[in-house]
Amino acid sequence: MADRKLQIIPIGGLGEFGMNSMAIRYGDDIIVIDAGMMFPDVELLGVDIVTPDFSYLEQNASLVRGLILTHGHEDHIGGVPFLLSQLNLPVYGSEFTLALVERRLEEHEMLDAAKLHPVKAGGRIKLGPFEVEFIRVTHSIVSSLAVAITTPLGVIIHTGDFKVDPTPTDNELFDLHTFADYGKRGVLLLMSDSTNVDRPGYTESERAVRPRFEELFTRSEKRLIISSFSSSIHRLQQILDLADEYGRKVAFLGRSMLNVTEIAHNLGLLSIPDSVLLRPQDIMQMPPEKVAVVVSGTQGEPMSALSRVAVDNHKHLYLKKGDTVVLSSRIIPGNEKAIYRMMNHIARRGAEIVYGSMNPPVHVSGHASEEELKLVLNLVRPKYFIPIHGEYLQLSRHAKLAQHLRSVGLEDTFVLETGETLEIDDLGARRGEKVTVGRICIDSGSLDDVVEDIIIRDRRHLSEDGFVLPIIAINKHTGRSEGLPEIVSRGFVSGDGSGLLSEARAVVAKTLETSTAEERSDWGVMQEKIRQDLKRYLNKQTQRRPLIMPVILEV
Amino acid sequence: MADRKLQIIPIGGLGEFGMNSMAIRYGDDIIVIDAGMMFPDVELLGVDIVTPDFSYLEQNASLVRGLILTHGHEDHIGGVPFLLSQLNLPVYGSEFTLALVERRLEEHEMLDAAKLHPVKAGGRIKLGPFEVEFIRVTHSIVSSLAVAITTPLGVIIHTGDFKVDPTPTDNELFDLHTFADYGKRGVLLLMSDSTNVDRPGYTESERAVRPRFEELFTRSEKRLIISSFSSSIHRLQQILDLADEYGRKVAFLGRSMLNVTEIAHNLGLLSIPDSVLLRPQDIMQMPPEKVAVVVSGTQGEPMSALSRVAVDNHKHLYLKKGDTVVLSSRIIPGNEKAIYRMMNHIARRGAEIVYGSMNPPVHVSGHASEEELKLVLNLVRPKYFIPIHGEYLQLSRHAKLAQHLRSVGLEDTFVLETGETLEIDDLGARRGEKVTVGRICIDSGSLDDVVEDIIIRDRRHLSEDGFVLPIIAINKHTGRSEGLPEIVSRGFVSGDGSGLLSEARAVVAKTLETSTAEERSDWGVMQEKIRQDLKRYLNKQTQRRPLIMPVILEV
Repeated sequence: MADRKLQIIPIGGLGEFGMNSMAIRYGDDIIVIDAGMMFPDVELLGVDIVTPDFSYLEQNASLVRGLILTHGHEDHIGGVPFLLSQLNLPVYGSEFTLALVERRLEEHEMLDAAKLHPVKAGGRIKLGPFEVEFIRVTHSIVSSLAVAITTPLGVIIHTGDFKVDPTPTDNELFDLHTFADYGKRGVLLLMSDSTNVDRPGYTESERAVRPRFEELFTRSEKRLIISSFSSSIHRLQQILDLADEYGRKVAFLGRSMLNVTEIAHNLGLLSIPDSVLLRPQDIMQMPPEKVAVVVSGTQGEPMSALSRVAVDNHKHLYLKKGDTVVLSSRIIPGNEKAIYRMMNHIARRGAEIVYGSMNPPVHVSGHASEEELKLVLNLVRPKYFIPIHGEYLQLSRHAKLAQHLRSVGLEDTFVLETGETLEIDDLGARRGEKVTVGRICIDSGSLDDVVEDIIIRDRRHLSEDGFVLPIIAINKHTGRSEGLPEIVSRGFVSGDGSGLLSEARAVVAKTLETSTAEERSDWGVMQEKIRQDLKRYLNKQTQRRPLIMPVILEV
Repeated sequence: MADRKLQIIPIGGLGEFGMNSMAIRYGDDIIVIDAGMMFPDVELLGVDIVTPDFSYLEQNASLVRGLILTHGHEDHIGGVPFLLSQLNLPVYGSEFTLALVERRLEEHEMLDAAKLHPVKAGGRIKLGPFEVEFIRVTHSIVSSLAVAITTPLGVIIHTGDFKVDPTPTDNELFDLHTFADYGKRGVLLLMSDSTNVDRPGYTESERAVRPRFEELFTRSEKRLIISSFSSSIHRLQQILDLADEYGRKVAFLGRSMLNVTEIAHNLGLLSIPDSVLLRPQDIMQMPPEKVAVVVSGTQGEPMSALSRVAVDNHKHLYLKKGDTVVLSSRIIPGNEKAIYRMMNHIARRGAEIVYGSMNPPVHVSGHASEEELKLVLNLVRPKYFIPIHGEYLQLSRHAKLAQHLRSVGLEDTFVLETGETLEIDDLGARRGEKVTVGRICIDSGSLDDVVEDIIIRDRRHLSEDGFVLPIIAINKHTGRSEGLPEIVSRGFVSGDGSGLLSEARAVVAKTLETSTAEERSDWGVMQEKIRQDLKRYLNKQTQRRPLIMPVILEV
């Protein structure tokens, strides 16, 4: 009996937003669902991205049968190169999801070795004792899948991220019937997306943004500039269709935007009307009222296309009075100040800005609200329930929602945080031993539009290269730096090293001098620019990559 | 003719949120409206508060006739001690506003020298060539005033912060009639609050939260813990009334909460029903269903009462399963992560959390939405208009709103940012010369519940004391620090100083050891704790106050 034991092992994403990864183990076989990343908190200076610590999988390398990807968002696939560099697993996911992974692996020269297996909704694969069926769900990115995993002890359903969109723009409906079938036959465990559990009612359909965009296409007298997440193919499709209808040409700006639209177009997921495309270099030559630009950088990321447009620092697009800039996206917590700074720059140029909540909406969420979560709970009627994808607050609310199912057979709900495991055997379900989890901070140097020689490095290794703190005193009246920047360093240059560091000070000084007054007044931008320039310089001089954390003082 | 010239000189708060201050000059006479502060951006490590640079007023010290305060919020009065320490002006404001200022001056031992003059709505004062009438407005804090300033060139109206609440809980209505009277007689210049210009429609009345609170008082089975801004006297009054009605006693937690309620009670602005008050030390002795606790710390400030309650670190209140915690406040941008961390701690203790937007609302804004702003523009019908209180985005939107007034005599609208002046004379209005403005960063050491020996110090002086960067490497698996903290210092200890710094390392190590695991996992809290402990130690040893900026690395 003791051998017939299922273990649910959250590697990331439970009790925290982002870097989702879930392992499922039965005896000597393990499968992994998703391997995501997250963006670091502002406190974590000097780090580009954060992935889960995959130690548990590395320690059990010979038992891991495969990696299943539910969809192509960064918080589900962003950790794939890092995981595969430790453990070259076969990877399963929809064609589109794998195409996004391919790009990423290519950048790291890992594509040739990778074992990628495209799957379709309705398809099945067998991995050791697990039989996995892929189920179509609706979400803000196309080709999103839930999985039903038949194990010797019963069926586990993992929803991935989803909403129940009754009118998706591509008419590819959420597969209610398959969820219902499994529910009818009996489900041992449901794991369901908790992201939006604190929103009452139903999330609006992706189609709900169309009336707002129609109005924008009708009303805008000059250029219409729309920023959205590059992976929101449904959104981009609606923009392309409306542009065609209202006689505007569309240019895409930003590396991620160009990448993703190319992939989606190649796979037939994004249909681009004849001759609607405009090359970025032709934007300023067209009559403004004939142009729509779709641009990445909704979160005010310092070096993104939109941030650069906002300060007249993009070679293909300058804002003018009468232009309309639309933020068709949500504000990810932590990014508010950067986004507001960007919007102020845009407003100073006389452009109108459309953002935030309004009716009809200019953005809708991709995650299920309370009533949709209840619908899935009711369809699936699981014996056990684990809320996934959320901070503790969301997980505990989702657990409470499930209580109404007690009458139809729900025996227990478990609020697990990353590293806390669940064991299920013939006697029931209970919490198991904790496993080693954590966060790996990666200084990847990946920047929109700046393709660098990217090396994945764990911060553990980075810290062996020491750290460098450039300290810049900026005069609050003039916006200029006072004297040469200071540089504090530990564990980086042995011996004197004063020559290198004084050169480094000159590098920082040059970055400051060559920045515009607007950039200098934006500390987020300056920190990032200084970090990039100094990293390039130090790496070239020493082949080492110390942690670089610019500290800006206002004096 | 050139002598008959009015100058409008924004000292702070235009093109930025917070630290509002506006100077008005006619010939050799200057008056100042408000002297606020703002909380620093996270990038500004080592700083407690930020005030405007009042150099312009200092340089014209002999001309400044008085400081007028519109209401008692920090972004309007928080800079008063700093301004008065440079320039001991007579100060005018409502009794309640001045009482809040008094507390602050007392802390800095400046109260005896201060010249405070209480005024009432409808009252008038004369300051040089300016005759100032105070006009009652509604806002989230009681006793808020707008001002109408009659100058030799015409009337200037400055709204302060306001909404037009048709049903305020104290029945003290927004004085539409006086605004209308001035409008009828002719107003030269209107300056109006732009904070909520991007919200369509009307802001809900303060009374709109009552149904939600009724439901909470009815439904909560155990302790009801409500966090709100301590200055929201209307909100506190409603809570006290409902507690009385539903048979709960009310305890106040947090220094600011105790201070402000005492002041408001003494002035007859907060009526406390007989025997409804509960001493904090008696909270845990009462039957939980008989207790309501009103606590400060809505923004997740690291050392606030609610943040400490959230991690079982408050001596008078521990959360238990079944308790309800209500956040009756907005999230100030930049504080999201800290607030979410705090809510997760609360959820882990099994308390239910009520927050965010819902209908009926658990919080309403104190600032006018679009339709109210139009109402005030239509009532006042100014010749010139300057939108105030907001970032550029808000100011430019508000300017656009005013365009519909062209037909009734609006001649021009000016979007000014702090430091950009306007000149009005008999020939018209035009932009004037820029004046010196900026930000003063103050390391005041003020902490809720920790009354320290507070010295106002300008960062210019602080930086003469050098800076100290404690660098702490925290192991992500164990949450413990690795080895002794590093300390990097410049300009602080001359010569070797290694004895002092190695002692300082021990101080930091001790702070880490004596913190709970939950505190250690919260970098915001750890940065603040380390900073406070180290500041106390270094100040005691050296009588100097270097800038202290803890840097936490995860390894």
